[in-house]
Amino acid sequence: MAEAASQDLLLAAAFVSDAQYNRNIPFKTSPEAVRLYYLYNHWIMRTATYFFIFLNLSLAMFEEPAVYPLPFLVTSVVEVLCLVVFFGRLTHFAKVTLRNVFWKDTKNICIMVAILLSLTDLAIYGVLRMYDVRSIRWSRIVRPIFLINFAESRQIRRAFRSIRNTLPEITYVFLLFMFSLLMFSLMALKLFGERNLQTAEGLPYFRNYLEIVFDLYVLVTTANSPDVMMPAFDFSSWYALFFIAFVIINTYIFMSLFLAVVYNNYKKHLKNEIRKLAYMKHCKMIEAFNILKEEEGAQFVVREAQWKQLVKLVAPDISNSHRELLLRISDDEQKGFIDKKSFVQLADLLNIQVITLKIRSHPLGQWMPGVYKSALSRFLRSMVRHRGFVWTYDVIILINAIFIALDEETPYISYAEWVFLALYIIEILLKVYTYEPRAFFGKNQFWNWFDTLIIFAALTATILNTTLRSTTKYNSQQILDIVFILRVLRLIRIVDSIQRFRVIMNTLINIVPTMLTFGGLTLVVYCVFAIIGMELFHGKIQFFPANSNAPHSLECGNAALKDSLFARAKYCKNNFNNFASSFIVLMELTVVNQWHDILSLLSLTPAVFFANGFANVTVQPAKLYFIAFHIVMVIIIVNIFVSFILEAFFVEYSLEKSEVETAIERKIQELGMGVQEDELQDEHLIDNMESAEHDLEGEGGTKPQSKGLMFKIASKRYRTVDSLLQRMFEAEIHLEDEGPSFEEFLNMSSTAAVCSNVTSESAA
Amino acid sequence: MAEAASQDLLLAAAFVSDAQYNRNIPFKTSPEAVRLYYLYNHWIMRTATYFFIFLNLSLAMFEEPAVYPLPFLVTSVVEVLCLVVFFGRLTHFAKVTLRNVFWKDTKNICIMVAILLSLTDLAIYGVLRMYDVRSIRWSRIVRPIFLINFAESRQIRRAFRSIRNTLPEITYVFLLFMFSLLMFSLMALKLFGERNLQTAEGLPYFRNYLEIVFDLYVLVTTANSPDVMMPAFDFSSWYALFFIAFVIINTYIFMSLFLAVVYNNYKKHLKNEIRKLAYMKHCKMIEAFNILKEEEGAQFVVREAQWKQLVKLVAPDISNSHRELLLRISDDEQKGFIDKKSFVQLADLLNIQVITLKIRSHPLGQWMPGVYKSALSRFLRSMVRHRGFVWTYDVIILINAIFIALDEETPYISYAEWVFLALYIIEILLKVYTYEPRAFFGKNQFWNWFDTLIIFAALTATILNTTLRSTTKYNSQQILDIVFILRVLRLIRIVDSIQRFRVIMNTLINIVPTMLTFGGLTLVVYCVFAIIGMELFHGKIQFFPANSNAPHSLECGNAALKDSLFARAKYCKNNFNNFASSFIVLMELTVVNQWHDILSLLSLTPAVFFANGFANVTVQPAKLYFIAFHIVMVIIIVNIFVSFILEAFFVEYSLEKSEVETAIERKIQELGMGVQEDELQDEHLIDNMESAEHDLEGEGGTKPQSKGLMFKIASKRYRTVDSLLQRMFEAEIHLEDEGPSFEEFLNMSSTAAVCSNVTSESAA
Repeated sequence: MAEAASQDLLLAAAFVSDAQYNRNIPFKTSPEAVRLYYLYNHWIMRTATYFFIFLNLSLAMFEEPAVYPLPFLVTSVVEVLCLVVFFGRLTHFAKVTLRNVFWKDTKNICIMVAILLSLTDLAIYGVLRMYDVRSIRWSRIVRPIFLINFAESRQIRRAFRSIRNTLPEITYVFLLFMFSLLMFSLMALKLFGERNLQTAEGLPYFRNYLEIVFDLYVLVTTANSPDVMMPAFDFSSWYALFFIAFVIINTYIFMSLFLAVVYNNYKKHLKNEIRKLAYMKHCKMIEAFNILKEEEGAQFVVREAQWKQLVKLVAPDISNSHRELLLRISDDEQKGFIDKKSFVQLADLLNIQVITLKIRSHPLGQWMPGVYKSALSRFLRSMVRHRGFVWTYDVIILINAIFIALDEETPYISYAEWVFLALYIIEILLKVYTYEPRAFFGKNQFWNWFDTLIIFAALTATILNTTLRSTTKYNSQQILDIVFILRVLRLIRIVDSIQRFRVIMNTLINIVPTMLTFGGLTLVVYCVFAIIGMELFHGKIQFFPANSNAPHSLECGNAALKDSLFARAKYCKNNFNNFASSFIVLMELTVVNQWHDILSLLSLTPAVFFANGFANVTVQPAKLYFIAFHIVMVIIIVNIFVSFILEAFFVEYSLEKSEVETAIERKIQELGMGVQEDELQDEHLIDNMESAEHDLEGEGGTKPQSKGLMFKIASKRYRTVDSLLQRMFEAEIHLEDEGPSFEEFLNMSSTAAVCSNVTSESAA
Repeated sequence: MAEAASQDLLLAAAFVSDAQYNRNIPFKTSPEAVRLYYLYNHWIMRTATYFFIFLNLSLAMFEEPAVYPLPFLVTSVVEVLCLVVFFGRLTHFAKVTLRNVFWKDTKNICIMVAILLSLTDLAIYGVLRMYDVRSIRWSRIVRPIFLINFAESRQIRRAFRSIRNTLPEITYVFLLFMFSLLMFSLMALKLFGERNLQTAEGLPYFRNYLEIVFDLYVLVTTANSPDVMMPAFDFSSWYALFFIAFVIINTYIFMSLFLAVVYNNYKKHLKNEIRKLAYMKHCKMIEAFNILKEEEGAQFVVREAQWKQLVKLVAPDISNSHRELLLRISDDEQKGFIDKKSFVQLADLLNIQVITLKIRSHPLGQWMPGVYKSALSRFLRSMVRHRGFVWTYDVIILINAIFIALDEETPYISYAEWVFLALYIIEILLKVYTYEPRAFFGKNQFWNWFDTLIIFAALTATILNTTLRSTTKYNSQQILDIVFILRVLRLIRIVDSIQRFRVIMNTLINIVPTMLTFGGLTLVVYCVFAIIGMELFHGKIQFFPANSNAPHSLECGNAALKDSLFARAKYCKNNFNNFASSFIVLMELTVVNQWHDILSLLSLTPAVFFANGFANVTVQPAKLYFIAFHIVMVIIIVNIFVSFILEAFFVEYSLEKSEVETAIERKIQELGMGVQEDELQDEHLIDNMESAEHDLEGEGGTKPQSKGLMFKIASKRYRTVDSLLQRMFEAEIHLEDEGPSFEEFLNMSSTAAVCSNVTSESAA
């Protein structure tokens, strides 16, 4: 009986945990399956999966063409190991989930096919290699599939789904844009084709229709802006009007239109997804409730003891006082049980980052009360707390900035660095002396941590560097670089001391986790294009150090590039010879083409450098590779990134203005345990606590607040991407506690089906 | 008595007209002032004002440095004439408006100061010129003030106000951005400054702090993307990480942040402005009502006869049937009078573009019924109406496109052009034969008009060209160019035949009038920068035709540019030597810098070409001119333009989906006189009418619809910019009929004060 109860609790905790982290895995509810499921979700297992996914992806660094070459045997053994791990993970998943759900899920099929393809390709390549036949490792292109399709990469999959849903609308605009481009190209051919004009490089200007289309496509991205116009403009000033009309229509209007379409659709689809997620979360909480419910009067409830055990299981690392707070919110009339409505909120409650502030007196005050409370010590502390202290250090940082900019060689200046380091350390010590150390290094005191880490890293690196120089006379460049960067990063402190900027900075820090999704998206696209690019362009262009005397070292090892601007601008290191170089080239293409590719008449500007540089040495259709990359990366992904930043900032700004609180946060405030966020910011927070401490001293130790605790809602920080997104669309999603409306049900796709599966399955 | 009544009517009509066009001029209500006010608003007077404003602005083309030089005497006489006209217009305005309002209005003061400054400068310059002393015509910079400050340029002023209101927020982000830029520059100085690296041109790399800042500022705009990185990248691949971090933070995040801030603020301020406008409109309609009201039972009303006279005065060009429709909407119970609530709607009613469709049989059918109704004729007409007819012509257009792309010289192909022209003319004739000509060339049949005009222009130009060639053997290039362009424009027809694209095209056409505002804004900024640029850089760079043998003709006439990339890329024609050239250079700067300025290490890419090209020959601070232009034009104005397009498309897409109708449009629908828009689109419309015609034939001439009229709401087109904007924010502005809330009142600025002035003034 006790075992059955603990199994029920485990199952309920699994549901609650899934709801909290928005995991949507329809696991089996048998006790063994639940235990396997816990193992499946264990952070070590998940980290290991990610480790092998990235190991598998990074194999491209060691396989030919390699950055760091390793024998084929080593890389193939590692690849087989990765595939075995993936297969193991998939088997584990199959044991956790239902058989029919498992085989219906495209994700799993994708992984299996990818494993099979990789093994086949590896075998073929290995056999051919034994007979010294070189073939293409084509299966490397499927490796990003593992990153996308394992259940952990929800965010990336969601982003891909959003892109897929946005595609039809983008296609219409793109077709219209292509039509406009083709029309303008035709006009350009008619207007300039028979003028016998020449480009600055003396090449024929606007003669071939396809080349005009490419040139004008590049002009849309503004990359070859005046160059493509100059020959016509030199011929007659009026022809400038053609290019002005072209740029206004295609660059300004159509590119904005792309952003508008992407933004509109991305937002719409994301909102639907978030609505589904909220519904699924609700489902799971109801599941958990149904497992634990007991009858109490006319309604079903969960008893307090059970609830506490559940919370301990779901969130083992939250403090007792925090759990008490959650209980008081859920059971605000202190009836000893939690009803369905309050229980369902638990997942959201757990996602609110509540910081427990213990009002404690300074440890020095307890150890050496005589010294710590002496007049001198009091003066010191009030001085540190004074606004002037911050200003003084701002001035010191500014002086430091000037010293950094000055020449390093003067010994006077290099000694000054020690003075600054000493000053910063004194500052930190003084602050720790004044404020309670545990509060100073609290979880949320980002800037304190930042300061301290920077200073100590700089101190360590500087000492290391000096030691190295004095003992071995060897000046380690790497360490010096780190010291320089750390020294400059210290200046960020100034921003920190201006409230207005700090708001923007906090917003920027908030969106960092979500930007990881875009990092993943970019990684997938880059991997695919890098592997294709390496197969297409590998070894065509070579980089030689400046004083090399290899043949054609100035023409990037390719005689075809003699006198080309690609070689003249020393672009030889921009090549597809290995994985790392390919990534940097793709990064450059992304940047230059930030909705604008450019074509100079003969490879004057970067994007076209590449397109023309590589096209020179392979075939003309290689241009298609670059255009495809531009469409995927710049028109779609960068626009989605911009859309996301736009939306996130609109939300942050409106939150900042209106101080909207969720229902739950309001409840915490109502309970009187919360502290207004404003009161708690920066020194002010410490001042508050200090004054509370003074009260303590005055009143002889009775604590004014219950248990000497205060809770602070870190409402401006979001623990998960989902919670930020949910916050973003909160105003627009009104999910009733009773579940989704009929209309919403109609909109639900496979995900919703999974939810009803869960319900029906455990009901059975 | 009758005169007093007609004067009242005139005054009321003035108020209604002001409400309709959102004019906010607090005019005097005495009969003479009202008559003067009518004159002031007469289209001839307004057109004349615009004419002289543009004449005054275009003087820069004829003054030194001139595109088309004219003697100083001529330009100064024209300028004095313009100033006299401006003064006259201002005096007229002073007579219309109240004395105290006139002198409190900054606009009027601005104009007077600008006139005075211009006259003073002209006098000084003239006198100095007589003594052969060259001085600067500094007053030319104030000329755009006339464009902004005359009462007609409401939209431009509103845009400037929005920019001014957006500035504080932009400034904060800009400061943070500058801080990030300065920090990265400092890091770059420390990391690369002492490596003795060289750029591709062999110049020192990243040595001077200010130059690093400029280089990295240009990198933000991505213009010098790989070039600025290559030396460091060649030295060590790891340094690429520095540039990747820089680009992600500054180019992607900060530039998106600028767009977010501009979009957010622009929208917010525009919404406030539109809310004020709606309130003012309401005020004015109440004014008009109070003038015309008569007692009827317990309430005040306006009698039908008075109302009709009023509408005739306000909108003399609408048809009787249209007026009857408006009357039935306003007085839907046919009581013979209009109450206050309905009367207030009149301004909005007049702004709805209602198209009167008369169901008429084809004139040929009346003149030659025998022929027109013969079997052959019927077959012909049904053929033309068939979907296949459209497809056939789409195929013909595609074939035409191929012929256009082919070589012009082959006589076979040049004769084919005649065949195509003939085919198109036959198409138009057939359509006119089939459909009712007046319906075919209806006001709203944009594409029919477009087709016909293009075809006839192409026909005329082709005939003209052939005649010229055969008679004078002279091949006029201008006419040929026009023929080529017209021929290509014909291809737009294909887009027209795909419904999906037509929606996007219609949206694009809809925002054209609003884009004129941005045109005005751009004109003002360009004028100011062009005039400053001409003073700073005039004559520094010269353009010589290709075969010139002037000294330094290859170095743009400036020895300092020898071997520079500016000269090598043949950029000599990009100079500030006259007004037109300056505009084109500024256009290029806008385009290249579409949120990305670029700096190649030594002027590799355009923006920097200019910055470095011009900076070479003047002083380094000239770079500031280019940075200032980038900030004003790209960071602010282009972002506002993009914001506007985003917002306009979001509105269009949501309208397209939801078919939201305003209350008034719904009323027209309710009255049963409206026809669903869908039914009326393209041929379908004509089919409908045709079937109605058939009914007529069958039933022997009795007309099924009252008076044989149908009304169509052109709801997708907006007569004025304001009505589009009002539509944009309609969902968010809930203005009660009772007037603004207290809160709204607090938000009202000077504009609202004017409104209350109007009220109090005429109440007195």
